[in-house]
Amino acid sequence: MIESINNEKIKNYAKLNDKKYRKETSLFIASGFHLVEEALKKGIVKEILLLNGEKDIYGGATYVSEDILKKVSDLTNNPKVLAICYMPNNNEIKGNIIILDDIKDPGNLGTIIRSAVAFNYDTIILSKNSVDVYNPKVVRATEGMLFNINIIIDDIENIIPKLKDMGYKIYGTDVNGGKLCQNEINKHALIIGSEAHGMNKNIKNLCDENLYIKMNNKCESLNAGVSASILMYELNGRNI
Amino acid sequence: MIESINNEKIKNYAKLNDKKYRKETSLFIASGFHLVEEALKKGIVKEILLLNGEKDIYGGATYVSEDILKKVSDLTNNPKVLAICYMPNNNEIKGNIIILDDIKDPGNLGTIIRSAVAFNYDTIILSKNSVDVYNPKVVRATEGMLFNINIIIDDIENIIPKLKDMGYKIYGTDVNGGKLCQNEINKHALIIGSEAHGMNKNIKNLCDENLYIKMNNKCESLNAGVSASILMYELNGRNI
Repeated sequence: MIESINNEKIKNYAKLNDKKYRKETSLFIASGFHLVEEALKKGIVKEILLLNGEKDIYGGATYVSEDILKKVSDLTNNPKVLAICYMPNNNEIKGNIIILDDIKDPGNLGTIIRSAVAFNYDTIILSKNSVDVYNPKVVRATEGMLFNINIIIDDIENIIPKLKDMGYKIYGTDVNGGKLCQNEINKHALIIGSEAHGMNKNIKNLCDENLYIKMNNKCESLNAGVSASILMYELNGRNI
Repeated sequence: MIESINNEKIKNYAKLNDKKYRKETSLFIASGFHLVEEALKKGIVKEILLLNGEKDIYGGATYVSEDILKKVSDLTNNPKVLAICYMPNNNEIKGNIIILDDIKDPGNLGTIIRSAVAFNYDTIILSKNSVDVYNPKVVRATEGMLFNINIIIDDIENIIPKLKDMGYKIYGTDVNGGKLCQNEINKHALIIGSEAHGMNKNIKNLCDENLYIKMNNKCESLNAGVSASILMYELNGRNI
């Protein structure tokens, strides 16, 4: 049982809200019962911090005070449990791929990862300027699906030619038109551009085809998480 | 030009971040160039507050200081312009309908409204416990599409029998199964449940059919904004 918010271990865990410290330690925070359960299934839990008085259904949890949970978690609505997790070492390219070109909003990234798992995408490739996948807001928005997908952070311009050599068809996205999105039975990588600017031009030029979603002309575009999810649903959801 | 944050009018406008005051005055805030432009198109603008030094492309904008924009807007990243708008009086039931049963997250509501317009839904009906549609976060997330849809706030249990009399088919949603979602050519109302609990049981019993989205069994559900958008896309998006 730890009760002091000045405990060295607790101070270090609280630093995991910082991307830099997450990178140094290869650790991140998963908060709330559902996420902790998903992390346990994957065997990536280093330590569980549980609120004093709660039942230890996990075995071996460290009891802590409410103040400690508040300090370590970034949530205003404090969770009763959180897990300090090892970043999984799942950086293999396999199955269908979703590529994110500078997605900035943590909620959008989390939502896209959740939908990617739902629609059988096995790998996600993020540009180096995308929001960090282990940001606590992202982790929460994935609802634990983060642990069910391979994650690669790399330069997209460099990786696309490699994917083409591996036989992947590269689909870009463009609100201004292209090919109407349809079911795809061959292996493919779908690129989603940033919320503010869409795909970078250099990357657009590398795509085999650009896909779009038909919509009422009063509406210029959809939320990035929604459009990514609809495209994944249409391309791959019917193959489930 | 107004420079004092203690100006009476400014103090009243700042109160529009409160639901109670919005209801009393039938006014709300639209912030940022894009939203102001959409509000102007609809003729619902009462007054435009523009940052000192910016060009008045609107004609008749009131110049204000940065502090005033900060006070009136709820944004941390302050906009250079905002409009005080009259709530539109568009509460007619027409076309296809989306019904929201206690959606709580402003981002989800805004996203759903944006997608509803994209996929040709003309009316949105919100339960009384849903997040307020004129909440500034909701208004922003709609990207101005709020002004292109009829809005009704009512008791869902009471309104469904009326919709049935009008010939609407009532679709519920259920992650645990039902009918696979497919293109629908007849007029319909689609009900989306709350993020935490899905549809209320009384409302579920009133549905003609429950729809679901096929997904990988590692994933229990999708984000509420995403699942609503995919269902609208599938039911109605192909008819555009």
